[in-house]
Amino acid sequence: MRATVMHGAGDVRIETVPDAGLIEPTDALVTITRACICGSDLWPYRTMPQDEAGNRMGHEFIGRVEAVGADVTTVKPGDLVVAPFAYSDGTCVFCHEGLHTSCLHGGFWGRNGVDGGQGEAARIPLADGTLVALPVGEDDALMPSLLTLSDVMGTGHHAAVSAGVEPGKTAAVIGDGAVGLCAVIAARRLGAERIILLGRHPDRIALAREFGATDVVSERGEEAVERVRELTGGLGAHSVLECVGMEESLLTALGIARPGGAVGRVGLPQGQSIPAAMMTFYYNVTVGGGVAPARAYIEELLPDVLEGRIEPGRVFDMTVDLDGVPDGYRAMNDRESIKVMVNP
Amino acid sequence: MRATVMHGAGDVRIETVPDAGLIEPTDALVTITRACICGSDLWPYRTMPQDEAGNRMGHEFIGRVEAVGADVTTVKPGDLVVAPFAYSDGTCVFCHEGLHTSCLHGGFWGRNGVDGGQGEAARIPLADGTLVALPVGEDDALMPSLLTLSDVMGTGHHAAVSAGVEPGKTAAVIGDGAVGLCAVIAARRLGAERIILLGRHPDRIALAREFGATDVVSERGEEAVERVRELTGGLGAHSVLECVGMEESLLTALGIARPGGAVGRVGLPQGQSIPAAMMTFYYNVTVGGGVAPARAYIEELLPDVLEGRIEPGRVFDMTVDLDGVPDGYRAMNDRESIKVMVNP
Repeated sequence: MRATVMHGAGDVRIETVPDAGLIEPTDALVTITRACICGSDLWPYRTMPQDEAGNRMGHEFIGRVEAVGADVTTVKPGDLVVAPFAYSDGTCVFCHEGLHTSCLHGGFWGRNGVDGGQGEAARIPLADGTLVALPVGEDDALMPSLLTLSDVMGTGHHAAVSAGVEPGKTAAVIGDGAVGLCAVIAARRLGAERIILLGRHPDRIALAREFGATDVVSERGEEAVERVRELTGGLGAHSVLECVGMEESLLTALGIARPGGAVGRVGLPQGQSIPAAMMTFYYNVTVGGGVAPARAYIEELLPDVLEGRIEPGRVFDMTVDLDGVPDGYRAMNDRESIKVMVNP
Repeated sequence: MRATVMHGAGDVRIETVPDAGLIEPTDALVTITRACICGSDLWPYRTMPQDEAGNRMGHEFIGRVEAVGADVTTVKPGDLVVAPFAYSDGTCVFCHEGLHTSCLHGGFWGRNGVDGGQGEAARIPLADGTLVALPVGEDDALMPSLLTLSDVMGTGHHAAVSAGVEPGKTAAVIGDGAVGLCAVIAARRLGAERIILLGRHPDRIALAREFGATDVVSERGEEAVERVRELTGGLGAHSVLECVGMEESLLTALGIARPGGAVGRVGLPQGQSIPAAMMTFYYNVTVGGGVAPARAYIEELLPDVLEGRIEPGRVFDMTVDLDGVPDGYRAMNDRESIKVMVNP
């Protein structure tokens, strides 16, 4: 079968790889019908040392079940399913606590012999715990929004949950990428009265406003902090959704949080530490969040997508086939595209 | 009147200072009947550059009201009162939210012309918001425990609250100083099933066991992390109460937290940043806490002290008069004493 392999910075290839197939009795085999490129895929796209073996890519996908192992009971051939960006057994202590990314038996796509999502097919370990069947056909108009449940919408939601967004409160979202835009959707969905987006790209800002952003701050650093403080009567935002992961964006997040407030960080951290230890201490600002347990949120978010109450699929503004994936990486890296969908 | 003034590292003097007196109509004047020395007082005791003007010291005290300003309504002359380590108006948005340390009009003792607690008397700004009247006489046997409500017991409680201690869960307390010991009391009070103390001093460990610690880990660094992981089935502690504030102790705290768990930090941070950004991200460990809103907790903790359900006053193992304060600093700094009470 054909799949995406990254060999180094800027070097993404579509190659023939071993066909996906069942190995364990808990596996499912799916044909991938929709996948996408993640902002986090851009980090290796910018920095990966050259490697002839390469890494299989992609961790967000929808597929059609072709076959299941003997122990699989919750999905069957023909089902359309969405996979979160980590597989998990659904039965361990952490899965029961809703933290599927810490599953004692789970793992991540594209590593240790597990297929990636940017390809024609994938073996799904722990299929019962991992997959969620979708009650729609594979060409349904909702596909883009359903696809976001695999990662980006769940990640935006995790930022909002971790930052303690509540009805009537003020949320600030740092970053106007696809995660930031989904974080705006999530903040509105959880009832934030005011949603301040910190971003600089006019097209993304326009979409954020449609998603529910009430204010936009395009300054950076200290100026951004001052601007948010002006907008919040000098107090800061109750909830800050940090969707970038750079040291500067985290420092901004801590600077605009209200005393007693919370930062929910979902941007993959590029720094080694969380800055401003004394400031967060003095103001009792909580820093939470992390890698989103997307699987935990699918059931909660799915009805809102199916009934059209949220439209996170609007973050996709470019679609490619499998051969177009390398150009999709380039387009996202050049900020020509917010997020690229792949129709293998 | 006489009061404690620090002039530099190791240089604590009892001096004659201007008499405390009413200035604002919201002030009270109290004669201090009990005070104490805080672990945080030891930081300047070790590092303060020499300064002939010096700093007034002490922020934990009980006193007898001698006079009140025209606007004071909740305390009256003759009342015995406890003061938290910050004064606050009790009416601003942050006081209403229970974050009195961020009071819009509040402040800290010993700064900006406000008296310190280690002296004969003090002017109390914002007396209605700051003071809590005690229903006992000034020589009551409960004085030591009541005095801890001004800071150390409230701070231990804040660690437990910020770390999300819940019935049936595992809490780990880092530090066997007075705050760590009070954190053990607080963790037990909130129902933790297992309380692991990380400490190294036999006398303090013995007291911690009486307060409710079920396990003790005396290793440090990576060995401590491994030991706690062994004790928790490899998973880590749900709640970690960080009562030291050093970079190493914070790193240990993050290392022993269970995925999805929380660190409540109340040790005054000595580092510039919170380490292990990626580890906390990957495991979704929340870092909360900060300077404790002790005022917010007095009403909650007071009945437990009055009815003898908690005995935080047992952390005091040395008592001095005002002239003995410099020796009290020395004894705490040399770890001869856990915490020193002052009877001015």
